[in-house]
Amino acid sequence: MEERNIVYLTRKIDFCASHRYIIEELSQEENFRLFGKCSYRHGHGHNYSLEVTVKGVTDPKTGMVINLSELDRILRSKVVDVLDHKFINVDVPCFEKKIPTTENIAIFIWDSIVGTLHGCQLHRVRLFEDPYLFAEYYGE
Amino acid sequence: MEERNIVYLTRKIDFCASHRYIIEELSQEENFRLFGKCSYRHGHGHNYSLEVTVKGVTDPKTGMVINLSELDRILRSKVVDVLDHKFINVDVPCFEKKIPTTENIAIFIWDSIVGTLHGCQLHRVRLFEDPYLFAEYYGE
Amino acid sequence: MEERNIVYLTRKIDFCASHRYIIEELSQEENFRLFGKCSYRHGHGHNYSLEVTVKGVTDPKTGMVINLSELDRILRSKVVDVLDHKFINVDVPCFEKKIPTTENIAIFIWDSIVGTLHGCQLHRVRLFEDPYLFAEYYGE
Amino acid sequence: MEERNIVYLTRKIDFCASHRYIIEELSQEENFRLFGKCSYRHGHGHNYSLEVTVKGVTDPKTGMVINLSELDRILRSKVVDVLDHKFINVDVPCFEKKIPTTENIAIFIWDSIVGTLHGCQLHRVRLFEDPYLFAEYYGE
Amino acid sequence: MEERNIVYLTRKIDFCASHRYIIEELSQEENFRLFGKCSYRHGHGHNYSLEVTVKGVTDPKTGMVINLSELDRILRSKVVDVLDHKFINVDVPCFEKKIPTTENIAIFIWDSIVGTLHGCQLHRVRLFEDPYLFAEYYGE
Amino acid sequence: MEERNIVYLTRKIDFCASHRYIIEELSQEENFRLFGKCSYRHGHGHNYSLEVTVKGVTDPKTGMVINLSELDRILRSKVVDVLDHKFINVDVPCFEKKIPTTENIAIFIWDSIVGTLHGCQLHRVRLFEDPYLFAEYYGE
Repeated sequence: MEERNIVYLTRKIDFCASHRYIIEELSQEENFRLFGKCSYRHGHGHNYSLEVTVKGVTDPKTGMVINLSELDRILRSKVVDVLDHKFINVDVPCFEKKIPTTENIAIFIWDSIVGTLHGCQLHRVRLFEDPYLFAEYYGE
Repeated sequence: MEERNIVYLTRKIDFCASHRYIIEELSQEENFRLFGKCSYRHGHGHNYSLEVTVKGVTDPKTGMVINLSELDRILRSKVVDVLDHKFINVDVPCFEKKIPTTENIAIFIWDSIVGTLHGCQLHRVRLFEDPYLFAEYYGE
Repeated sequence: MEERNIVYLTRKIDFCASHRYIIEELSQEENFRLFGKCSYRHGHGHNYSLEVTVKGVTDPKTGMVINLSELDRILRSKVVDVLDHKFINVDVPCFEKKIPTTENIAIFIWDSIVGTLHGCQLHRVRLFEDPYLFAEYYGE
Repeated sequence: MEERNIVYLTRKIDFCASHRYIIEELSQEENFRLFGKCSYRHGHGHNYSLEVTVKGVTDPKTGMVINLSELDRILRSKVVDVLDHKFINVDVPCFEKKIPTTENIAIFIWDSIVGTLHGCQLHRVRLFEDPYLFAEYYGE
Repeated sequence: MEERNIVYLTRKIDFCASHRYIIEELSQEENFRLFGKCSYRHGHGHNYSLEVTVKGVTDPKTGMVINLSELDRILRSKVVDVLDHKFINVDVPCFEKKIPTTENIAIFIWDSIVGTLHGCQLHRVRLFEDPYLFAEYYGE
Repeated sequence: MEERNIVYLTRKIDFCASHRYIIEELSQEENFRLFGKCSYRHGHGHNYSLEVTVKGVTDPKTGMVINLSELDRILRSKVVDVLDHKFINVDVPCFEKKIPTTENIAIFIWDSIVGTLHGCQLHRVRLFEDPYLFAEYYGE
């Protein structure tokens, strides 16, 4: 019954955004000590790469875990439309108070898409801030 | 007894091939609705990247989980010779009826090599169709 | 007069397609001797990467050599719509008789877009068949 | 006299910054028509990659066109300290009125470093906004 | 209680080093049969890429699993200072007798940093010898 | 006469090697001041990437500037067999006295292959020591 095979399928998309790391209760010096250049007030930006992994049994007819056009539609409406070309601290309500670290944005993306999938499960969100730093979240 | 350490070793190889997604029972319009451009009859192609991960205890003398020349020999005969520069739907019997999605090719590669390894276990097959889509299969 | 600055702007896009190298007048053996695995009759494929470079003076108001949305529109209609997800030998009339080498496809792309640009010049077409092979054409 | 050889040496560095494309004289709609999502008021960001190419004769003793530690020092003080983790429109005076397109930032970097090199010439500044868009400037 | 979220954070760093694979008890021919070109006596080298993954709960105030400047400090003192620009067989005591395979270097790096982390756990060391070979170690 | 088109074709290959930068007449301190960590006596290594560009008219029958199998044969015998898995200062006679900088190795590769090409010209040798440093040589 090879049709019962469980496969993990990952889609990668890119978006760009800006952010800053500032805890308003702290002074500029304390913020710099904690966050370095990320604490500059006017923000800075990144080309983020996002890998979303879903887990499921392949459909015996189509050979697919999920139809990619469906997954792409979800990622466009839940991630790209919300985060792409935005200043995350200012344009995304969830981050008005919360620091938009790679960790926190990964969790935010998980929460945004976990309820939208049918016929397969969200397995992992992996977010690269740049090629040298990434966070992974499994909903734990 | 550090020699008892379990390490996961991954070899990446590239191959190129063409494929198409067509369910013969469906009309051209239905296939296009299901598979988009992948349903074009004459096929299209990709540079696939394959990562094969084996798991094992390092040999205390050689420091290796598997001799790479052995792993390379297996991947050449079981993967490259079978899939490289081929039209998968036509040239690979297993895909005469089955849709050669990334998911199904990953499973096919797992099945082709899982019985050939000695002294270590096949852990994962990860197949990239392009840098923005990959499937992983663990034999589950 | 910094507004007179000449800048070279390059847009990269990806497409995937399949092809084969066969000279019909030659035997299968002769074709294999000449083209190796590329001579397999059913074709094989690649993820092509295309870099199109235009040269021009930056607009003093917009700071642009060309509006990217205009360049993207041209590349979509002249390149993606024509080559993406196609079997080049069969689906693109120009290659019915001509071998679709990286060299020849680069020339074909140059010829397809050179007349469509306004306010800047086409400078170079660079086409990657894979990360290890690319051809560049300057219209010479 | 092989020591008279002319070599082009390129150093790549990365920095991240945010920017926006807005012509203040135009309405929000006109800006959006011209610049798309880049016209969002709060800005967005990128991981920029910069390749600076110098041209010169290799020193017969050291085999170098320029001592890399010298080139790195220049790039750090003239590029990284000025642009990294900044909101270019706000933090870099030159871009108070000028649109920080990839083209204009490349010219700005050329102008910032061209006078600092000794014993070799600045040949080219190549700036990637992301892997799919780059501008090159040769001081023409 | 979103602050209880467990995130895996990965930092990638590069270093370059040389090594050779020789078992002194074996003849040159036997070493070549076992290790191929890696057995050349004077050694050869690589640009290694190292990905260190830590696992932990994000700090509700900073949104971080670990402060990156702390992780970078550890990687610099425990990995870069020890391995970068070194001939591993000669310059690193641990490898005087042990073959510096990718597997063994990954284990060595795990052992070097596992005791230095506070507030989060070391989850995985992934070491690339080149883009086509990597070893992963989880301390098992 | 489209067959008269001039195309630049580039082949990329990888090899790994080790080297060190030491001028024997200088003290260890002076060498360190000049070359930094590259002056460590036992050497270190890199995964080099080499791009060799040839220029020529495409053959009207094959659509090729040069048959890739011929170019690959040349690169294997003149570059890979000579430099791959070697300690350049010790194993390559040309570098017994000469510092094996990226610049000098690029010139060495040019000189090794320039006389071997038939029907097309060597245009450029581009050598990456790592993704952040490369030298280009045009035989000037």
